Amino acid sequence: DTIHSTAEQFGAKNRWGPEQSQTGVRRLALSDLDKGVKDWFVKETKSLGCTVKIDEVGNIFATYPGRNNDAKPTGMGSHLDTQPTGGRYDGIFGVLSGLQVLRTLKANNYVPNYPITLVDWCNEEGARFAMSIMASSVWAGISTKEHVYALKDVYDNKTTVLEELNRIGYKGTEKCSHMANPLKCHFEIHIEQGPILEKIGKKIGVLTSAQAYTWIEVTFKGMPQHTGTTPMDYRRDSLLATGKVITGINDIAKKYGGVATVGKLSLSPNVVNVIPGEVNFVVDIRHEEDEGLHKMYKAVRELLAEVILNKAGNGVPLEADIEDPYPTPAAIFNSELVDLIDESAKSVVGEEYAHRMISGAGHDSCATNTVIPTAMIFVPSKNGISHNPEEYTKPEELEDGFRVLLETVLRYDES
Amino acid sequence: DTIHSTAEQFGAKNRWGPEQSQTGVRRLALSDLDKGVKDWFVKETKSLGCTVKIDEVGNIFATYPGRNNDAKPTGMGSHLDTQPTGGRYDGIFGVLSGLQVLRTLKANNYVPNYPITLVDWCNEEGARFAMSIMASSVWAGISTKEHVYALKDVYDNKTTVLEELNRIGYKGTEKCSHMANPLKCHFEIHIEQGPILEKIGKKIGVLTSAQAYTWIEVTFKGMPQHTGTTPMDYRRDSLLATGKVITGINDIAKKYGGVATVGKLSLSPNVVNVIPGEVNFVVDIRHEEDEGLHKMYKAVRELLAEVILNKAGNGVPLEADIEDPYPTPAAIFNSELVDLIDESAKSVVGEEYAHRMISGAGHDSCATNTVIPTAMIFVPSKNGISHNPEEYTKPEELEDGFRVLLETVLRYDES
Ligand SMILES: NC(=O)NCCC(=O)O
Ligand SMILES: NC(=O)NCCC(=O)O
Repeated sequence: DTIHSTAEQFGAKNRWGPEQSQTGVRRLALSDLDKGVKDWFVKETKSLGCTVKIDEVGNIFATYPGRNNDAKPTGMGSHLDTQPTGGRYDGIFGVLSGLQVLRTLKANNYVPNYPITLVDWCNEEGARFAMSIMASSVWAGISTKEHVYALKDVYDNKTTVLEELNRIGYKGTEKCSHMANPLKCHFEIHIEQGPILEKIGKKIGVLTSAQAYTWIEVTFKGMPQHTGTTPMDYRRDSLLATGKVITGINDIAKKYGGVATVGKLSLSPNVVNVIPGEVNFVVDIRHEEDEGLHKMYKAVRELLAEVILNKAGNGVPLEADIEDPYPTPAAIFNSELVDLIDESAKSVVGEEYAHRMISGAGHDSCATNTVIPTAMIFVPSKNGISHNPEEYTKPEELEDGFRVLLETVLRYDES
Repeated sequence: DTIHSTAEQFGAKNRWGPEQSQTGVRRLALSDLDKGVKDWFVKETKSLGCTVKIDEVGNIFATYPGRNNDAKPTGMGSHLDTQPTGGRYDGIFGVLSGLQVLRTLKANNYVPNYPITLVDWCNEEGARFAMSIMASSVWAGISTKEHVYALKDVYDNKTTVLEELNRIGYKGTEKCSHMANPLKCHFEIHIEQGPILEKIGKKIGVLTSAQAYTWIEVTFKGMPQHTGTTPMDYRRDSLLATGKVITGINDIAKKYGGVATVGKLSLSPNVVNVIPGEVNFVVDIRHEEDEGLHKMYKAVRELLAEVILNKAGNGVPLEADIEDPYPTPAAIFNSELVDLIDESAKSVVGEEYAHRMISGAGHDSCATNTVIPTAMIFVPSKNGISHNPEEYTKPEELEDGFRVLLETVLRYDES
């Protein structure tokens, strides 16, 4: 219910069915809607007796007190921002499950041994400010606040993260650092965003790791000529070159057992009877292992080189710019926490419904995992659809997930 | 000079070099700039003693009187509208060369045997209102004024041709019809918009025909899933399917000796980490012969069917919409007029610099050719570039072209 009431209030969008719950959510990081849901989160957690700290990059830490408040808190977290055409669950379910854990403690007057902190990590999606897992990366020390403050809104190419943090009042005073503001561990529950649990009939995914991935941005520059008057052999067709990359990376993914996609692409002049002069696109490649990603990466670079220097331009070489960011390494989650989740999952849904798997997507937990013990729980996604208004997980599946999170946190607190 | 002064006044845009002449032109059909250049055209031709008629679809007919003013006039024409990122020559050179012919007659007090009509055909490009060779097609009776009046501005998807004709004052009273307002023949001089004349070192192209062509609009609908979490075998990737079409049509063009291009493409949601759910694109195929175009067309449809039903979606079929317009048949120009141009060209630039060839692009002459004897003259295009600000033809090449047109019109008038 909380999922749907926050969706209603803070950004419901893109109806896909007649039911009240059948819309997606568009709640871009640091927008007014993001401020709205952050204010609500602060109010809710305070009403449960939490102490709330906001750090300088917009992360919110709501700490439920335990017996031993000098110890580092047990952490739970995820994110409340969404994709522009996002669903109601991605990230949001993780934060609201954590909130439900705190509500359950409160309702039962249960005092944990150690404090429990629920975190709303700021800008996980990277949809408005193009860096995913943004503020958790700063907290983990794998990025800097200076870097992220300067990121610009992709829609107006002007407004910065710093301006928006100030504008919505979420540039907090707490240092954004796992050293200054530590957690003992981090548990995150999330929708799978893929089809596997549903297909194999499992209820809970126990994550052992998350894939390594990287995004290679390519701009091909050819010659914008007339489609009717330019014989095939005289062309430098940037979109033909791109077509060869799109089909080629599919073969590479299959060969190396990873995944590869072009999801973003634009061309100019984008006119029916003009050969595309310039195409800009991003190749997203992922693999379970860093080594596998590296092999895929090398194969993609070889494919790009071949397309640029040779056949794709129909004889004449193309020019290209390739932006080559540092890859996100695979996250291997802490095996003790993984086992703890596994036990909790088996006790909640039964041995036959818990399934060890890897995460295809990156999550805030990939950042926290670089500095503290971290592990994750998945619930199924209907048809594997995510980043889409039709994202859906059944209430009973959400309930199972919440109970696994609760049990995991309580077992951890006891251990 | 007239080319550059009209470019300066009516839509100079997209500078590509330091010289005064080194910008393109953006003068969309029925815009204020198009009105500006039409007003100028009417004023110039009137000042030469022409009678000016404007028809109900915005075509302007400027008739220079001859001895025998009851006879059907000799026609010359092209268009003054441009692509959004157009050059200074495409269409414009044809109208201004015709104007130069009339100026030359006037300057020499030359009275032709028959009247000579110079036409500015309205909306040849189809860039703003998406029908190329628009108003000449109505004149030739291969389209109707009702059809074109209703066409909408592709930028606002609202404003119609009829509204804009009325707004800029170019919905004339003359019937748009080759029967009510006839010409005896139609000569058009145009830039090649392709690389052939330059590559083989010729100065004048004598056109025997124009290619057949058709534009197939395709929308692929797959599933917008997460790039990281969706294994390759579970995908319905519309852009992968499109990539197979882009590379496949290249093979088809080579096999059948035609040309094939995707110049226009858009995808959604167009986000780095979302598999494209929907891609819309247009396949432009062309061939010298109607029969060849038909074979290419069949091969493209087979390719589309294969991609839809089988491999492209990585296992799972895609849905598709295919818009299948009636193809524009090849235009075989009148052989007597072609010979006349050939003789004029040889006399102006010498036998070794005239070259018989076909037009890769469609032109207003393709429409007039369906009802009256028609033929065309080409001048070289630097690097074969067109529909681009860098479109360029040397002044001496333009001069040669103008002289061939003048000689052709005078020889025709004598015959
Ligand atoms: N969960 C999620 O969509 N994270 C964004 C980064 C990624 O594409 O994996
Ligand atoms: N000349 C020209 O660009 N005409 C437009 C129709 C076509 O694409 O051939």
